[in-house]
Amino acid sequence: MTNKIDIHYCTGCRWLLRSAWMAQELLTTFEGEISELSLHPGTGGIFEVWVNDHRIWSRKDDGGFPEITKLKQLVRDQIAPGRSLGHSDSKT
Amino acid sequence: MTNKIDIHYCTGCRWLLRSAWMAQELLTTFEGEISELSLHPGTGGIFEVWVNDHRIWSRKDDGGFPEITKLKQLVRDQIAPGRSLGHSDSKT
Repeated sequence: MTNKIDIHYCTGCRWLLRSAWMAQELLTTFEGEISELSLHPGTGGIFEVWVNDHRIWSRKDDGGFPEITKLKQLVRDQIAPGRSLGHSDSKT
Repeated sequence: MTNKIDIHYCTGCRWLLRSAWMAQELLTTFEGEISELSLHPGTGGIFEVWVNDHRIWSRKDDGGFPEITKLKQLVRDQIAPGRSLGHSDSKT
């Protein structure tokens, strides 16, 4: 369990709250599989999520924010690819 | 602005919520002074707060959890020692 998540968010856009919410969702769902989750205050409309130095979401490239179920699928694909996320896990 | 905060919490004790709350308080108060704040899931009743690899709080050594005003003073002393925290800043 050496997986690291990084969330970069724009402070000027007031995205701390949603970033902290997503952080808690991920730490709850992947308890025992995440060793460190970091919040990085940024600027310029940044919102990115990285797993082990692999970027899984960028607001600018992916268009807005991820649904939380989609975000969990993307994290799961990186750190626990065989695991089902239960009822919220659909083929996307 | 290269200050890093680390919060270690015990998942078995269900301390994610208070850790995430403290994280948001610190990121709000010290916006522009923190470059990274990391949450570290742990075990065995751990609750520790580190600033730039200097431990400013340990539940086991300091006895329980810090008041949020006290925690902010301890962080301030490390990363912005000259700064006033306003009405909540008392001599302790």
